[in-house]
Amino acid sequence: MKIAILGGTGSIGEGFALRWAGNHDISVCSREAEKAVKAADEYKNMLLNKRMYCSSLGGCTNDMGIMDANVVVLSVPYDSVITLLKSLLPHFNNQIVISLVVPMKKNQLFKYTPPKQGSAALEIKDVLPETVKVVSAYHNISAKKLANLELRLDYDVVVCGDDEEAKKTVMKLTEEIKTLHPLDGGGLSSSYMIESMTPFLINLAIRNGFSDLGVKFV
Amino acid sequence: MKIAILGGTGSIGEGFALRWAGNHDISVCSREAEKAVKAADEYKNMLLNKRMYCSSLGGCTNDMGIMDANVVVLSVPYDSVITLLKSLLPHFNNQIVISLVVPMKKNQLFKYTPPKQGSAALEIKDVLPETVKVVSAYHNISAKKLANLELRLDYDVVVCGDDEEAKKTVMKLTEEIKTLHPLDGGGLSSSYMIESMTPFLINLAIRNGFSDLGVKFV
Repeated sequence: MKIAILGGTGSIGEGFALRWAGNHDISVCSREAEKAVKAADEYKNMLLNKRMYCSSLGGCTNDMGIMDANVVVLSVPYDSVITLLKSLLPHFNNQIVISLVVPMKKNQLFKYTPPKQGSAALEIKDVLPETVKVVSAYHNISAKKLANLELRLDYDVVVCGDDEEAKKTVMKLTEEIKTLHPLDGGGLSSSYMIESMTPFLINLAIRNGFSDLGVKFV
Repeated sequence: MKIAILGGTGSIGEGFALRWAGNHDISVCSREAEKAVKAADEYKNMLLNKRMYCSSLGGCTNDMGIMDANVVVLSVPYDSVITLLKSLLPHFNNQIVISLVVPMKKNQLFKYTPPKQGSAALEIKDVLPETVKVVSAYHNISAKKLANLELRLDYDVVVCGDDEEAKKTVMKLTEEIKTLHPLDGGGLSSSYMIESMTPFLINLAIRNGFSDLGVKFV
């Protein structure tokens, strides 16, 4: 599968590139090709140093990455995601777009600040062509832990989406990351629940002296 | 400590009566004294059959229970809680009131339907005298599992409240139930987050073939 990771040069994008590189064609995407290529080379070296296989991992601009991707991962901040997607509209056709986007503000603590549509995922769906299948997932996975390949990730990942096939594909991609457990979270209208859990988890971590909290439903 | 459990004859009230009976004076409360006494007798027999200690466990009407309680547990449905509390107002003075209340509606799935205050806990605080300390907790604990004394409950309990001392008391009460882990969830303004998790967990359980889901933050 061809996976383009928008925001692939930083934060949680790195973790997905490293974790999926053995099974898929990964495009690490950025506005600047040079930056993307450099990051992809770094990831490749990290995998090679661990003697791990990376079938195809390269860097390119966002538009190039999206163009022939089956799956597009949106690991970009909420504040820039809508402008970014609007500038890339001509390159979208029928990809699966995974939104990790969480609209939140920091005052003393973090607060979920959804747009009028009710969630970032629904706003993103509004902007993209109808043929694109938006799936919402991975909001509550720590970027640091995902990028640490020594770590087995014993977390649940709630996946929301209106297209059942697309949701299944993302649940399958989730299972490939040891040992994330995908759960069907229903339609995209439930995405606010998993998005709003991110500021809640950060606040909980701050107050109780933890860091990088994830969630398990038991 | 004197703990009055409103709605103590059914659902999750039973679990709290059984789990705290060894350490505290428990009043199982109901509108009808007879019903309350009968339930308390049943709980006592259950504990005695397991050769477990119950220092003081009795049944009484709601007003009697509240009057000399340090802690009042509200394990009543959202639809009746405000009317009930208004009818009992003269008996409240400076108790800690623990709200387990979740405003939700079932359509095809469950949906969180908070009042204009933002959460049930904040609405309850509005109704009660200012001297009463409202704490929000236990929304995501399964009634069935709580009442099963063979079960060790490996769950996190997020506790929200504006009075730090009252919150600490509830966190301590939580620790007494093996092996619940209390977490400081901040002020009562964060209660919507733990309340809304209840319909989310029920929907998640229905969709993924589980039952009585709880939550752990790891």
